[in-house]
Amino acid sequence: MSAFDALMEHQSTTEALSSIAERLGWDQETVMPRGATEQRADEMAAIEAVLHERRADPRVGEWLDLAAGEAEDDEDRRMLELIGRDYRRATRIPARLAAELARATSLAQGIWAEARGNDDVGAFLPSLAEILMLKREEAGHLADSSAGAGALYDALLDDYEPGARADDISRLFDAMRPRLVRLRDDVMGAARQPETLRGHFPQETQLRLARQCATAFGYDWSRGRLDMAVHPFSSGRWQDSRITTRVVETDPFNCLYSTMHEVGHSSYELGIDSDYAFTILGRGVSLGVHESQSRIYENQIGRSRAFTGWLFERMSDAFNGLSVADADAFYGAVNRVSPGYIRTEADEVQYNLHVMMRFDLERDLIAGKIEPEHLEEAWNARFLADFGVAVNKPSNGVLQDVHWAVGLFGYFPTYALGNVYAGCLHQAMRAALPDLDTALSEGDASPAVEWLREQVQRHGALLPARELIEAASGMEVGPEPLLAYLEEKFGGIYGL
Amino acid sequence: MSAFDALMEHQSTTEALSSIAERLGWDQETVMPRGATEQRADEMAAIEAVLHERRADPRVGEWLDLAAGEAEDDEDRRMLELIGRDYRRATRIPARLAAELARATSLAQGIWAEARGNDDVGAFLPSLAEILMLKREEAGHLADSSAGAGALYDALLDDYEPGARADDISRLFDAMRPRLVRLRDDVMGAARQPETLRGHFPQETQLRLARQCATAFGYDWSRGRLDMAVHPFSSGRWQDSRITTRVVETDPFNCLYSTMHEVGHSSYELGIDSDYAFTILGRGVSLGVHESQSRIYENQIGRSRAFTGWLFERMSDAFNGLSVADADAFYGAVNRVSPGYIRTEADEVQYNLHVMMRFDLERDLIAGKIEPEHLEEAWNARFLADFGVAVNKPSNGVLQDVHWAVGLFGYFPTYALGNVYAGCLHQAMRAALPDLDTALSEGDASPAVEWLREQVQRHGALLPARELIEAASGMEVGPEPLLAYLEEKFGGIYGL
Repeated sequence: MSAFDALMEHQSTTEALSSIAERLGWDQETVMPRGATEQRADEMAAIEAVLHERRADPRVGEWLDLAAGEAEDDEDRRMLELIGRDYRRATRIPARLAAELARATSLAQGIWAEARGNDDVGAFLPSLAEILMLKREEAGHLADSSAGAGALYDALLDDYEPGARADDISRLFDAMRPRLVRLRDDVMGAARQPETLRGHFPQETQLRLARQCATAFGYDWSRGRLDMAVHPFSSGRWQDSRITTRVVETDPFNCLYSTMHEVGHSSYELGIDSDYAFTILGRGVSLGVHESQSRIYENQIGRSRAFTGWLFERMSDAFNGLSVADADAFYGAVNRVSPGYIRTEADEVQYNLHVMMRFDLERDLIAGKIEPEHLEEAWNARFLADFGVAVNKPSNGVLQDVHWAVGLFGYFPTYALGNVYAGCLHQAMRAALPDLDTALSEGDASPAVEWLREQVQRHGALLPARELIEAASGMEVGPEPLLAYLEEKFGGIYGL
Repeated sequence: MSAFDALMEHQSTTEALSSIAERLGWDQETVMPRGATEQRADEMAAIEAVLHERRADPRVGEWLDLAAGEAEDDEDRRMLELIGRDYRRATRIPARLAAELARATSLAQGIWAEARGNDDVGAFLPSLAEILMLKREEAGHLADSSAGAGALYDALLDDYEPGARADDISRLFDAMRPRLVRLRDDVMGAARQPETLRGHFPQETQLRLARQCATAFGYDWSRGRLDMAVHPFSSGRWQDSRITTRVVETDPFNCLYSTMHEVGHSSYELGIDSDYAFTILGRGVSLGVHESQSRIYENQIGRSRAFTGWLFERMSDAFNGLSVADADAFYGAVNRVSPGYIRTEADEVQYNLHVMMRFDLERDLIAGKIEPEHLEEAWNARFLADFGVAVNKPSNGVLQDVHWAVGLFGYFPTYALGNVYAGCLHQAMRAALPDLDTALSEGDASPAVEWLREQVQRHGALLPARELIEAASGMEVGPEPLLAYLEEKFGGIYGL
């Protein structure tokens, strides 16, 4: 067997174990008995340790050296590049640290959920401090020692958005922030304000509508399912990518748009060329690209005037009438910009401001400029400054997101990057599909889904993120398409 | 680190992966999207290959040699014995064969379910032939080449009931069969016949009652859950052992007694000393002992006059009255002996006759005396001879059980062994707990559960099966207690 083939066979089992670990994570957040927390933490630690051993296996290093001359095409070369990347990361991180991180984050997830339920920041602080210490240690192993002060954070960011650098992202965010703040001010001060959708919306009906929306986006139910979770997520790849949602009976948009968002993530994984299953190409290439799919499904398509026209009819039928008079008012209610604490419930105008705030806070945590015990204070101060509102309780503030509890430092900025990518893709997609709104107004998102599958999803990890988005959209990645889309859309709704 | 400690650390990860593989199996049979079958087969093959590599790791052989002198007590020695046993089995089975078996059985499970649904034996035959070929190859690697004609089957049996031999089981079954046949004839010919419970019993109410029954048996809901499955099973250990059931809306006993049965299995795993978690002692010692727990929960306790008295009241309330007049008639209906095709629905009198038939058929399959294409014919002929009824369709005959589809040859006889063990345990338990019926009549099985936990469950795999049952019951294992219990119980119900 050639070194290349031996390496691919080894990688295939690694991919299978990685898929299994992801499935265990789904189990933990949806169906696992609550008394199994410690055992599951040990199980996750064990499988992560085995994965780490496999990625750092000295034979992988040898195979990589030998296989370089055996690669026959771009796919082969890209697989070697990505396996080499994982190998370098894995050999730099001690197995002991990987296992400790897996165990600590598995345990912290339950502690975070309870702390959030009790609005008790103190109960979560020891976990946060431990995870932060472990992540800084990890970053220290990964970072280029000759790099500057931001090297630790960049090393973590690279795990989610390969090749990205925090300084570049800072510049991008700095360019976006003034126009977003201005748009928000204009919108908040506008004379014309959309109505809110009011009423009581039973859980079962919401879930039925959520399924209809997922179907409208072509979600393949034979390869997925919908469950409830505290913090909605999608999980899995290839033949099995599941989505989750949550229900607030006074606000059906929470459930419906969470669902469309997760359908975007799952569709990316399900849309990857099936030849890439059990290879390192069989995954979304970066979290930014992943988020571009979830956000374009949720926002540019799901919150469009055309699609909401269809949704208005479905919801009017399902709930025997709505508090808003017509499809235009409904479109306003869907896109209403109002003060709010929760990132995942934020409108398109303010969402990126949430992300920018977390990005700055977590950079400071990693740099040691904020200690965990001062994080709540720093959060609340920044929130007041950026959003003009005082946080009323930790579950609406520093405890709202699971990310830090599960060690996801460097993850938040990919949300805003995803929006920027989605802006580029949406502009190109509209140019390619001039009649898209006709289909959307009939609850049929398939032209958009097919365009995205063809241009983005099927490629898996074949092309680097920025290259993929530029090839798909035919433009250089930048904030302008997103900002122009937002200004036009909200200018229209608010009569600016 | 000592060789002993190094071995235990290695084993701990192996146990974690094994627990994960079991959880994946649960996922596949309860919640997995149907389109994920092939992917899951590859995932199962991958994790089984990794487990096989770990069990057959040459370092395990070295550690075992070195650790023999380091064992400090009976627990240590038993752990080395069991790990050595797994090591010998694993080193004899090629990794290629283990992976092929995992993949073939994972795929065959879906094919079996579809064939069963369509009553299409032909659709299942290619899978059966492949699995049979692989299992015979496995047995060939495991069997002592100097042993006689039954060596292949004994090698498979040993995986489920360590130390048992088919010839001994044959003798045991031969001793039981005439008395069971006579009892069945007497019962079927008796002038007094119990009524059947008739009516329509909605699924939701059945599931609510199933939960009440599980609670009456002390099932720990914080470490388990109840789901639906085609063929009920229990899955998992330590902090997470889940049960499944099925619902037939004309026959609530199917759901309720499946549930009690699986609660017995799960309680065994949950009842093991928590110090044994992630060690090789942290498991049921044999399938026969496992089945002794499920059967004593289901039958000797669950179908007792005392417990059914409580259940009669609960069911009368839940279904607004029943077709049977009183608790005595209900007790008769629960224990009614009638012709039937399905093993899992069989009464206590006929159940072992089902098992004995499968035992003989699968020995003939392994010995090559029956080819897969003649299995249905052989099944139907034997069923007619043993039960006096012609099989009317394959789903009531050769396709009714999942076992052969998932490679479980040598598994069936452990069901009847479990009944024999349960007979011994029940006799000893009744002597130790003279007031047990008082608690059972109030829906409280805790005295029985506590006795079983103390005498059997907490020990995990510390003692070999027969030794454990003999220590717990204070008697030599034999069929007499079971047969005497059956003759007394059914003699009473049928006025013999």
